[in-house]
Amino acid sequence: MKLPNGFLASGIRSGIRKRRPDLAIVLAPSGAAAAALFTKNRFSAAPVSLSRAALARSGGKVRAAVVNSGCANALTGEKGAGAARRVRDRAARLFGCPPEEIFLASTGVIGVPLPDARVREALPAAISRLSPSGLEAASLAILTTDAGPKVASAAFRHAGKRGRIVGFAKGAGMIHPDMATMLAFLMTDAPASPKFLRAALREAADSSFHAISVDGDTSTNDTVLLLASGKLGGPELDRPAEGADFRRALAAVCRELAEMIVRDGEGASRVMAIEIRGARSDREAKLAAHAVATSPLVKTALAGGDPNWGRILAAVGRSGAKFSPKRVSLRAGSLVLVAGGSPAEYRERDAARIFSRETVPITIDLGSGPGQASLMTCDLGHDYVSLNADYRS
Amino acid sequence: MKLPNGFLASGIRSGIRKRRPDLAIVLAPSGAAAAALFTKNRFSAAPVSLSRAALARSGGKVRAAVVNSGCANALTGEKGAGAARRVRDRAARLFGCPPEEIFLASTGVIGVPLPDARVREALPAAISRLSPSGLEAASLAILTTDAGPKVASAAFRHAGKRGRIVGFAKGAGMIHPDMATMLAFLMTDAPASPKFLRAALREAADSSFHAISVDGDTSTNDTVLLLASGKLGGPELDRPAEGADFRRALAAVCRELAEMIVRDGEGASRVMAIEIRGARSDREAKLAAHAVATSPLVKTALAGGDPNWGRILAAVGRSGAKFSPKRVSLRAGSLVLVAGGSPAEYRERDAARIFSRETVPITIDLGSGPGQASLMTCDLGHDYVSLNADYRS
Repeated sequence: MKLPNGFLASGIRSGIRKRRPDLAIVLAPSGAAAAALFTKNRFSAAPVSLSRAALARSGGKVRAAVVNSGCANALTGEKGAGAARRVRDRAARLFGCPPEEIFLASTGVIGVPLPDARVREALPAAISRLSPSGLEAASLAILTTDAGPKVASAAFRHAGKRGRIVGFAKGAGMIHPDMATMLAFLMTDAPASPKFLRAALREAADSSFHAISVDGDTSTNDTVLLLASGKLGGPELDRPAEGADFRRALAAVCRELAEMIVRDGEGASRVMAIEIRGARSDREAKLAAHAVATSPLVKTALAGGDPNWGRILAAVGRSGAKFSPKRVSLRAGSLVLVAGGSPAEYRERDAARIFSRETVPITIDLGSGPGQASLMTCDLGHDYVSLNADYRS
Repeated sequence: MKLPNGFLASGIRSGIRKRRPDLAIVLAPSGAAAAALFTKNRFSAAPVSLSRAALARSGGKVRAAVVNSGCANALTGEKGAGAARRVRDRAARLFGCPPEEIFLASTGVIGVPLPDARVREALPAAISRLSPSGLEAASLAILTTDAGPKVASAAFRHAGKRGRIVGFAKGAGMIHPDMATMLAFLMTDAPASPKFLRAALREAADSSFHAISVDGDTSTNDTVLLLASGKLGGPELDRPAEGADFRRALAAVCRELAEMIVRDGEGASRVMAIEIRGARSDREAKLAAHAVATSPLVKTALAGGDPNWGRILAAVGRSGAKFSPKRVSLRAGSLVLVAGGSPAEYRERDAARIFSRETVPITIDLGSGPGQASLMTCDLGHDYVSLNADYRS
């Protein structure tokens, strides 16, 4: 897939990891307007702190994103901060831009400072490979325990012309609302101000990256970056209410990437699409959805394809949401399993069939108000344990 | 082990489960003063609702506890409530006491009404086996996926005499602060008022049953019951500040049972004893301890014996507790792994040795205030997945 006009990308092996590509670059040769979302984890990684500050200083302008896998450079104190600054400064010199126009992101093991000498030495080779068709290489270089690359795109109309949005992401463990260990990079040729991009990205993330959970853990490094080269031309999108078709396309790309991430949750074989309705408020609906999405008992039952709705409702019951148990109903697809807080009449094998699908749609109505929420989660099976019990070895 | 004076117990097969004992009775022939703690899950099971109401009506008096495994009788609506009432009424007739002096508890699969005919028919046989040495049989009949029975005892001095407290419990999955799927029954010969017992039980639970977590799920059925026969004699313990030695012994029994429960968490091979210090408040310390104790990434690393402190601190970082990352330190046993928010110098094999112990002691100091909390959690390994992916089959 080709990048939108105004972008080049590459991905190479820099030597952080032994046998896999680990360094990706996205370059906007004429610069790009930018907006980003970062993890809320208090131990944010060195690249997160640096990129957050850089965006503020540049006023939302980015020339290049330099992304590595194999090392999160988180919880690495002054050593890690120094390593990140040296990569940034070297990249700025190579691209001839101010350091605040370099955007860094890292993913991998926590607690080990970035081996920045390797990254700095590899930068010229990564730059020599930059190309409009470098998306695939870049998308491969950011993966860690992901089963495969995650790329999505959509088109939109702006001022009579057809623009494009292309994104790539990495996911696997620690995916959770509030942006877990995921990285996502979104590029568009739309002309847009940083202010517009910030609003559009927040809106798109709410129904995508913030509506998935793999294991309830949120990481030190999560980052979503949206870059707009403006090469499409036409009037600049500036006010948040503008660009309805662009925002629709952006939300679609984010949703597609988010779904790829949750389907590729570490060791995941199946996802549950949780719909909560009838809560007293959206906030309480979110509490309930979150309790179900992170329950190890629900997630192991899902791994076994077991229609164990008791565990689902037990999670709702401890979520903090308030409701009358007698008004609660639960459906799997269109099959009613619980009505009025009691088991409904249904055939076990019909339920088992739904719970063995790739996507198990669960709707829980609390019967207590207008609040609702959606959350997608994956199962917790043996592969998750195998991947995580010895990730570092 | 013999029961304290004033108690008889038995455990038999009633036929709820195919091949295992599933019905336990504890009888105080002369009655007992009682206090209980129940789950806060909004979907509390039929026996929980019934027993909570019975204790209120009887003013804290219990003649007999009737406990079954194999069926939680939770989320079973009016059918389940009727089944529980029928067991209660039959037991009350057999023991010649008012129905509100019968205490019910159930554990097992959610969503299936109690097969109360089997239980009612089995009651006479269970009663015929009641004996001062029936503790072992009772402790076996309440188990579900537990690896083995959990019994503990302690002695105390009261008015110059030596009294006893004996307890038995079941644990396994869904163990969590706020009392998860556990049942515990505590019997003492102390003379005590229900008011005193309530205060003593709350105090003891805070440092025991409320300080353990297996998988963050809390169940519909959790119950702790404390019964005092008064057969020891002497002045009645009434005001909460009285009976210091009794309260010490009660806390010791509860802590021993709680530790047995977490060590026998479903599929658990190892526990982590989490100490949070230096939080801004005890509440924030609890948030941090809870985030670590329920993190699937921490728990899978623990299964692998992997000293992956990055995951531990990443969980602290997303917990909601506020602190300055630069002031954080982390120790495993006496080995400092993180100081001033950065990795300390230590030998990986020293850390690995501590993380391969049966109990991994982790102390995290947030350096931000006087708040502290302790929580014990177990690992999440393949056995947990195997047990829970097909619990019902």
